[in-house]
Amino acid sequence: MQGFFEVLAVEQVIRLLTAFSPLPPEQADLLESDGRILAEDITAKEDLPLADRSAMDGYALRAADTFGATESNPSYLHCVKNFDIQTPPDIELQPGQCAGIVTGGILPAGADAVVMVEYTYAMSESMVEIRVPVAPGTHVMLRGEDVRAGGLLLPAGTLLRPQEVGLMAALGTLRVPVHKRPLVAVISTGDELVDVSVTPRAGQVRDVNSSTLACLVRRAGGTPVLLGLIPDELHTLSARLREALETADCILLSGGSSVGVRDLTVGALQAIDGARILCHGVALSPGKPLIIADVGGKAVWGLPGQVTSAQVVMLVLGQAFIRHLQGWKNPFDQALWPKQKAVLARNIASRQGREDYVRVRFEQGEAGELLAVPIPGMSGLLRSLTGAHGLVRIPASLEGLETRQQVDVLLFEP
Amino acid sequence: MQGFFEVLAVEQVIRLLTAFSPLPPEQADLLESDGRILAEDITAKEDLPLADRSAMDGYALRAADTFGATESNPSYLHCVKNFDIQTPPDIELQPGQCAGIVTGGILPAGADAVVMVEYTYAMSESMVEIRVPVAPGTHVMLRGEDVRAGGLLLPAGTLLRPQEVGLMAALGTLRVPVHKRPLVAVISTGDELVDVSVTPRAGQVRDVNSSTLACLVRRAGGTPVLLGLIPDELHTLSARLREALETADCILLSGGSSVGVRDLTVGALQAIDGARILCHGVALSPGKPLIIADVGGKAVWGLPGQVTSAQVVMLVLGQAFIRHLQGWKNPFDQALWPKQKAVLARNIASRQGREDYVRVRFEQGEAGELLAVPIPGMSGLLRSLTGAHGLVRIPASLEGLETRQQVDVLLFEP
Repeated sequence: MQGFFEVLAVEQVIRLLTAFSPLPPEQADLLESDGRILAEDITAKEDLPLADRSAMDGYALRAADTFGATESNPSYLHCVKNFDIQTPPDIELQPGQCAGIVTGGILPAGADAVVMVEYTYAMSESMVEIRVPVAPGTHVMLRGEDVRAGGLLLPAGTLLRPQEVGLMAALGTLRVPVHKRPLVAVISTGDELVDVSVTPRAGQVRDVNSSTLACLVRRAGGTPVLLGLIPDELHTLSARLREALETADCILLSGGSSVGVRDLTVGALQAIDGARILCHGVALSPGKPLIIADVGGKAVWGLPGQVTSAQVVMLVLGQAFIRHLQGWKNPFDQALWPKQKAVLARNIASRQGREDYVRVRFEQGEAGELLAVPIPGMSGLLRSLTGAHGLVRIPASLEGLETRQQVDVLLFEP
Repeated sequence: MQGFFEVLAVEQVIRLLTAFSPLPPEQADLLESDGRILAEDITAKEDLPLADRSAMDGYALRAADTFGATESNPSYLHCVKNFDIQTPPDIELQPGQCAGIVTGGILPAGADAVVMVEYTYAMSESMVEIRVPVAPGTHVMLRGEDVRAGGLLLPAGTLLRPQEVGLMAALGTLRVPVHKRPLVAVISTGDELVDVSVTPRAGQVRDVNSSTLACLVRRAGGTPVLLGLIPDELHTLSARLREALETADCILLSGGSSVGVRDLTVGALQAIDGARILCHGVALSPGKPLIIADVGGKAVWGLPGQVTSAQVVMLVLGQAFIRHLQGWKNPFDQALWPKQKAVLARNIASRQGREDYVRVRFEQGEAGELLAVPIPGMSGLLRSLTGAHGLVRIPASLEGLETRQQVDVLLFEP
């Protein structure tokens, strides 16, 4: 009934996936660039700060006038002006002079340092006691210290976070060249499936994968396009795939659980001009019956119909691929995945030559230690995922993990 | 110039923030419920699965007919039918009989187990060799095993992830009661500030906080509403805050860096009927000049104008508060923050009684160890954040951390 096929190692599949090209750049509004990858170098058009600015509230002065100043033997300086923050200074400080300045205010010519107001005492409107010595440059942000005009602000490939968005805002960047977010078509197939809105009769089940996959795509920065259910019929499926590929950057097709659906997916792909099947089976559990095809440079995924299998494939490979399309560097690297160390509550057997991902939940052990408790149950059961906090990976080289062994739990995103 | 005020400990501020009520529930479309908190219990209206289903491709049979079966001494069963996945079985298996079944297919009456196709051999259309014994229940998902009709599907307070969305899809839940996402008004004030689109003249700087705060709000699940720049004028500011509170669930007001803006914020808040200042200063660095007020049950934040200070306050307190409004449990718990262990590259001094958050970047040490290198530079410099991978927390009880000490780096979200 089920055909045998050559199963690829997870690393082989990652190499195949990495060979797909990231999507081209587009110009995004500044606030829409957060979480995306810069597609071109950005250079600064101005210095930042634009002038020497104070980093504190206090007095701008010549550092040399404070040398030797102490609490008991202060320097006395003549305060010639108090600057507000937005008016550029119009004087040049002479030796023995100082000027009131606020955080962010521009230093007047002649000043080379700022002393904090806490270390001063205003004797009168025009005479200030300085109780500490300061070195030149103290509490001063020099013109161009943050960014120099003409310099590289952010290189292509940078992942933009709120702080990079802020840096671009400071330099007046209104539009940002970033890699496109992929449009990801989500299709379910399987004659037993009905839409979520339908009440199933005996033999039918509601389509779960469309919803789960859409959420996982969105969390990885892609835009899911739900194309719904397609009947298990080769020419219909093939036509719908071709149609979807006109606009989508990637297709996630999940098979029903019926026998033959996987062969149908392969058949439907083979019926598309120029389609190449790159992978038909991966040494991953759950998730073995994974199909990946290249159709004109776009990836079509044939995911397992079992919900938990499809989700594990998405967590281990699919979300990283969606990030790869957006220009992320090394998105497949599991070092990036938040982890939690825990003690395994019982033995887990595994088959050598296959990477296993075991669903676990956390419990408190008797000695207060954090236990990772493997969740039993067949992969068809949805509760095995909703009750889980994360996955424990068993590398292909091992035959299992032992009770009380320390493990890294790969945490599900909250 | 700068007034003194009673500074609260970070834990005191967290207690104040936790006292604000989470937002009321709303009905969200299933796919829009991902990442949100369930506001009411959801009970199951149906069993899941609806019937006893096979978890494998193979043969449904009576387990007793396989007892003692081996490779060399198989059982021989009469195959009476091959079921497809969507047709409910219309027969009852008798002893000595089996029926072909696919993953997800419904078991016929009389069958209590499934044997995988790999352990069988079809002698003819109607005779199958069974080469392993199976126990009753093997590879069968029992009716209601995943969820029982009338049972609690997901309790109020559950954080909905893709797998919970999938579970709700399986049960036909189209609309989900979740806590609202807060509308968060973002306002900047400071006479030196100009909009990002404006070319600043000497003494002016572009408004960075509106952009950074908007991104941080969105990442925490809130909806930012940018109200832009408001002049440093008490009655204008007070009127705009009142106006914003008519629709917004929370306000983030960030002061310019000029002296007096913090007093202005307090003054503008005091001019609003029923406003209570809960906090005016927190033992947090950077971030000390934080103001929090309660205006009719809504929180108004007066954030520091310094960009890095405002961002640290948002990471340590602000994003967690936005999650608290959405019904998260313990969002202030830093145990939830992804961490990376590293070796501190140099001493960091800190003041006792104050929590310090030091920006660090990772570097490879000489022995291959991961170093956390504190980033020098004043908090006005934007590069100190864009160059950072995370923060190292120095608890209020310590006077600093020492070179080569192992530290947990609180990672910035990618």
